[in-house]
Amino acid sequence: MPNISERGQLMPESPIRKLAPLATAAKERGIHVYHLNIGQPDLPTPQVGLDALKNIDRTVLEYSPSQGIRSYREKLTQYYKRFKILVDPDDIIVTCGGSEAVLFAFLSCLNPGDEIIIPEPAYANYISFAISAGAVIRTISSTIEEGFSLPKVEKFEELINERTRAILICNPNNPTGYLYTRREMNQIRDLVKKYDLYLFSDEVYREYIYTGSPYISACHLEGIEQNVILIDSVSKRYSECGIRIGALVTKNEAVKAAVMKLCQARLSPPLIGQIIAEASCDAPESYYRDVYDEYVERRKCLIDGLNRIPGVYSPIPMGAFYTVAKLPVDDAEKFCRWCLEEFSYEGQTIMMAPAAGFYTTPGAGINQVRIAYVLKKEDMEHALVVLRKALEAYPGRVED
Amino acid sequence: MPNISERGQLMPESPIRKLAPLATAAKERGIHVYHLNIGQPDLPTPQVGLDALKNIDRTVLEYSPSQGIRSYREKLTQYYKRFKILVDPDDIIVTCGGSEAVLFAFLSCLNPGDEIIIPEPAYANYISFAISAGAVIRTISSTIEEGFSLPKVEKFEELINERTRAILICNPNNPTGYLYTRREMNQIRDLVKKYDLYLFSDEVYREYIYTGSPYISACHLEGIEQNVILIDSVSKRYSECGIRIGALVTKNEAVKAAVMKLCQARLSPPLIGQIIAEASCDAPESYYRDVYDEYVERRKCLIDGLNRIPGVYSPIPMGAFYTVAKLPVDDAEKFCRWCLEEFSYEGQTIMMAPAAGFYTTPGAGINQVRIAYVLKKEDMEHALVVLRKALEAYPGRVED
Repeated sequence: MPNISERGQLMPESPIRKLAPLATAAKERGIHVYHLNIGQPDLPTPQVGLDALKNIDRTVLEYSPSQGIRSYREKLTQYYKRFKILVDPDDIIVTCGGSEAVLFAFLSCLNPGDEIIIPEPAYANYISFAISAGAVIRTISSTIEEGFSLPKVEKFEELINERTRAILICNPNNPTGYLYTRREMNQIRDLVKKYDLYLFSDEVYREYIYTGSPYISACHLEGIEQNVILIDSVSKRYSECGIRIGALVTKNEAVKAAVMKLCQARLSPPLIGQIIAEASCDAPESYYRDVYDEYVERRKCLIDGLNRIPGVYSPIPMGAFYTVAKLPVDDAEKFCRWCLEEFSYEGQTIMMAPAAGFYTTPGAGINQVRIAYVLKKEDMEHALVVLRKALEAYPGRVED
Repeated sequence: MPNISERGQLMPESPIRKLAPLATAAKERGIHVYHLNIGQPDLPTPQVGLDALKNIDRTVLEYSPSQGIRSYREKLTQYYKRFKILVDPDDIIVTCGGSEAVLFAFLSCLNPGDEIIIPEPAYANYISFAISAGAVIRTISSTIEEGFSLPKVEKFEELINERTRAILICNPNNPTGYLYTRREMNQIRDLVKKYDLYLFSDEVYREYIYTGSPYISACHLEGIEQNVILIDSVSKRYSECGIRIGALVTKNEAVKAAVMKLCQARLSPPLIGQIIAEASCDAPESYYRDVYDEYVERRKCLIDGLNRIPGVYSPIPMGAFYTVAKLPVDDAEKFCRWCLEEFSYEGQTIMMAPAAGFYTTPGAGINQVRIAYVLKKEDMEHALVVLRKALEAYPGRVED
C-alpha cells in the first residue's frame, strides 16, 4: 500500500474536530451541549437571498464563468464601495468560499519553502493551506495581556529573511476579535513596501466592528496596491456559510492571471450560491442593522459574563464574533475535554475551542479558549452559568 | 512588486480559453457559433433535482459536514451498487466538483517531484492540479490509429521509476470517448499491484457507454482496493455542472484521513448542491434512458457525419460524449482560430477544441480536434455542414 504524502502527514487536525466525537457522545447521554466553539451564525440568511433561491427557474444547472458571474461581480463592486474599497469587476475572482481564495492565493504567490508571517493566535486552517502550497508559516505572538494588538514591527523584522514572501492578517480577527488600528495598518503597509511582500488580508468580518473605530482595509493602504490580496466571503455577513461563495480581490494583474488559471482548472464556482449571494447584496439596511445589534448585545452579554467569573479574563473584542479568553485552568484542552466527558450542570455542558490550536508556538495559549458568540443571548447566559460551575468543579483549576 | 509563484508561471492556459475571445468576437459580428468545444450538456437536470431546489425551506444556509451530508453519502452507496461498486458511506468524501477530488487526491497522495503516468490525450486540467501539488505528469501516447486503446504495458514500465507513485485513467475517456476493456483494466491492475502505485480513476462518464461492452470500474479490480482512488461527479450524469458536487471514493483509511484534513480546512462542500444531487439520485429510469438515447443518436449523427467528410477520420467513441477526430489540416489550432476569425458559412461557424492541448508530447495531436456532442442533432447536422465547408475553404488544408 503506497504511503500518503508528507503534506498529508503534516496537516494538523483541527482542535475542534478532535472534540467533536466527545460532544456527540455527551448528547447521546442526554446532555445539552452549548456550542461556543463554532463560527456558524445562527442568524437568518437575508430574505432576498432566500427568495432568489426559491425563484431559480432554470432547467439546466450549468457551469458559471470561472471568474464568477459578471453581474454578481458588478454588484460586489457596489458593495465594496460602501467601505471605500474601489475595485473593478475584473479585480474580483469569485471563489468557492474564502477557503479557496486563501488556497489559490498561496498557490499563485508562493513557492515551496517561501515563508508567510502571521500574527498568532490565527485561524488554524491557514496552516493547512500553507502546507498544501508547501509554504511555511512563521508566527509572531500577540498576547492576551496586550489585548492581541499587532506585535511590534521589530518582531516582524526579526523574522524577515530572503524566503519571506508575505504577511497575512485577519482583520477584524478570528479568533481574537481584534481590529487593527490605522497606525498598525500603516506599520504593516510600511513593512510590505520595504520588503516587497504580498499582503494577504482576510476581512470577512468587516460588518462586525463594534467600537466606533474605523475599519482600515488593506485595500485602503496607499502605495501597496500591487501587493494586496483581499480574501473575502459572504459566509459570515449573510449567514450563508453553506453556499460556499468567497472572493479573491486584487489589482495585481500577474496574480489575477495565475489565480484565473487555477480557477479555469476547477471550472466554475457554485452557480446557485452566486445567485443567492448576488441577491443578498440587496439586503435592506435593516438586515445589517438587526444582525449588528444582535451581535452587539451578545458580545456585551458574553464579555461581561466572562469577566465576572472569578479567574476568567477576556479582552473586549472590537470586531468579529469571537473572543479569546484566559481561564484559571492547567490546560484548556483538558478542561474542554473534561466539560464534555465528565461534567454537566443541570443536564447541560459547554463546548469551546481550545486556543492552543490557534498558536504554533508550543505552550502558547495553553490556558485560553476561543468562544464564539453565535448563540442567542438567553442561551449564552445559560452557557456562562455552566462555565462558571465547570470551573468551580474542575480538578485542574489553577489560581493566577 | 513580488513575483508570482513558479507554479503560477508553469500552469498551462487551456486551449479552449485561448479561443474564447475569438468566439465572442465572431458573435459580435453577428455570426452564429456552434459550440462543439464544451463539456456542458444542454440536456435538462432531472426534475426531482429541480424540485428539491424549489422546496428548500431553510432560514439559515449553514455549513454542511466536511465529509458531505450523511444521507447523501448513503444514497450514493445505493447508486454505486447499481454498478457493482460496493462502498460504505464512510468511503465517500463529497467534494466541490470532481475537480476538488482530483486536487485533494494529488495533495494527499503525492509529494513534490512524484510522478503520475497518464495515457494521453488526457483531460488538460489534470496538469494544472498536478502542478498545484508539485507532482509531475508523465504521459504515454495512445494513438488515433489504434482507436486510443490503452498503450502497451511495456510503455508504462519504461516510464516507471522510483518517483512513480500513480497511474491516472479517465474511463470512459475524456477527450477520446475510449472505454477500457476488461483485459486492459486487468493490465492496469497488475501494474498498480506490481509497483505499488495509486490508481486515480476518473469515471464521471459511466452512464454513457454505448457499445454493450462492460463498464469495468477501478473499484471492480481485485487485490488493489487500497490503491484505488475513484474520482466522481454528478456534473455530467445529471446535467448539474453548476452545482459543483463531486466525490472522492476510497477504501484506503490513510488517504481518507489525509483528504479529510483538507476537507476540514475548506470547511464544507456546497450545501444546496448536495441537496439537489441527493434528490437526483432518485431520477426515474426514464431520465437516464432518455438522456442515454439522446446521446446515442447524437453520437451516430456526429461520427457518421465526420467520417463522411473527405479527409476526416474519427474512431467510434464507446463512451462519454466526446470524440477526437483527425482533420486534413496543417495545424488544428490554426484551423480552429481561422474558423472563428475568418470563416463563416451562411452566417455560421464552429468552435472546436484543438486536441494538442490534451497531449503533452510536443507535436502530438497537431491535426486533431476534440468534438463534444452536446448539441441537438439538428444543430449538429448544421455544424457538420459548416465543418465540411470550412475544410474545403481552409488555406492550410493538407491531404493525407
